Amino acid sequence: MSNAQSQIPEVVIFRLPIYLYMLSLLTEENTEVVSSQELGTRLQMTPAQIRKDLSYFGKFGKQGKGYHVKTLSAELRKIIGLDQEWNMALIGVGRIGKALLDYGNLALRGFKIVAAFDIDPQLIGKKAGGVIIQDTRELSKTVNNKDIKIGVVAVPPTQVQKAVDLLVGCGIKAILSYYPVATNVPSDVRVRKVDPMFALQTMTYYLRRLGPV
Amino acid sequence: MSNAQSQIPEVVIFRLPIYLYMLSLLTEENTEVVSSQELGTRLQMTPAQIRKDLSYFGKFGKQGKGYHVKTLSAELRKIIGLDQEWNMALIGVGRIGKALLDYGNLALRGFKIVAAFDIDPQLIGKKAGGVIIQDTRELSKTVNNKDIKIGVVAVPPTQVQKAVDLLVGCGIKAILSYYPVATNVPSDVRVRKVDPMFALQTMTYYLRRLGPV
Repeated sequence: MSNAQSQIPEVVIFRLPIYLYMLSLLTEENTEVVSSQELGTRLQMTPAQIRKDLSYFGKFGKQGKGYHVKTLSAELRKIIGLDQEWNMALIGVGRIGKALLDYGNLALRGFKIVAAFDIDPQLIGKKAGGVIIQDTRELSKTVNNKDIKIGVVAVPPTQVQKAVDLLVGCGIKAILSYYPVATNVPSDVRVRKVDPMFALQTMTYYLRRLGPV
Repeated sequence: MSNAQSQIPEVVIFRLPIYLYMLSLLTEENTEVVSSQELGTRLQMTPAQIRKDLSYFGKFGKQGKGYHVKTLSAELRKIIGLDQEWNMALIGVGRIGKALLDYGNLALRGFKIVAAFDIDPQLIGKKAGGVIIQDTRELSKTVNNKDIKIGVVAVPPTQVQKAVDLLVGCGIKAILSYYPVATNVPSDVRVRKVDPMFALQTMTYYLRRLGPV
């Protein structure tokens, strides 16, 4: 890790998946080279902003020639860390947890739930989505054995902090939570919530403009 | 609806919730006025970009004086459509659907699931999260009676298109889908997917920098 890279503002990191998504669209359109101008038009960002964001990570593209779509895409995937598969542990095999085990691994390319945990004796030992549900007491051992780096928390809101604590205790530094409950974690642990609010908020703008509601 | 507003690029609309989120943080910090410079620093965007985005919707703030946080926040909430409550219909009371009924209304301020539908006779008539699960055949009537504008689809992937078609048939123009399955809808209908991929992708960047994995 270079020191320069550790100083990159988090909001810039948040935009990388957006650039990657746009590059994947351009790839589908068989576009080979794209200018920061064109990227700017598509993302409604200034070309200067895009160049500044990307310059944090190195020199991409040639002055006046634009970016080579496939190369930039591959570089961004590497920077984001998508050139490898990430093993995840699921805590909580209730409704959402079961659904994640059944369908999640199909949908989450590059991210794989390789172990699932619950405290319910009725569930422990049962099979779901290709894994055998384990007692949460086995979490630490399994995290090590299966090289798990990400925790997915799908327990009821009142249990979220407990599940997060368990994961943090096993050295997990990245947690995806399915309920928008606030959690306390050490500063080197990142918790992201699956939040439908942003998605909803971008639709109501348009609903409002369909006429009186 | 002004013609000008209907021409606003969708990516700009996508940034409005981000501005609103930042303004809510500033409100919590008791900041009364914020410059586009300061907003730019916080969001790592150029001040010009922010001013351009906001200028689509009118004149906010005074030259050299910055934006009044509470006023801009209230204006954006109005533009996005968050100054009213939105009634939603849930299709599919399986694992995710039940969880949404149990906890969703607590978490989704301004958005309320007022009706739930399923095709399973075992579920129809039962109560979940304050609503009585109805037969999907009653969807159209309920959408009208309860002034429902948004559909939430939480059925298994193979049933998503069918559920979306049902909603579209009832005149619903905004749909939130809980599985990342592609759907076909008329061009005036917006479908958003609750997608944990972006959240995961912003964490792997940091995981990679923790050392070899």
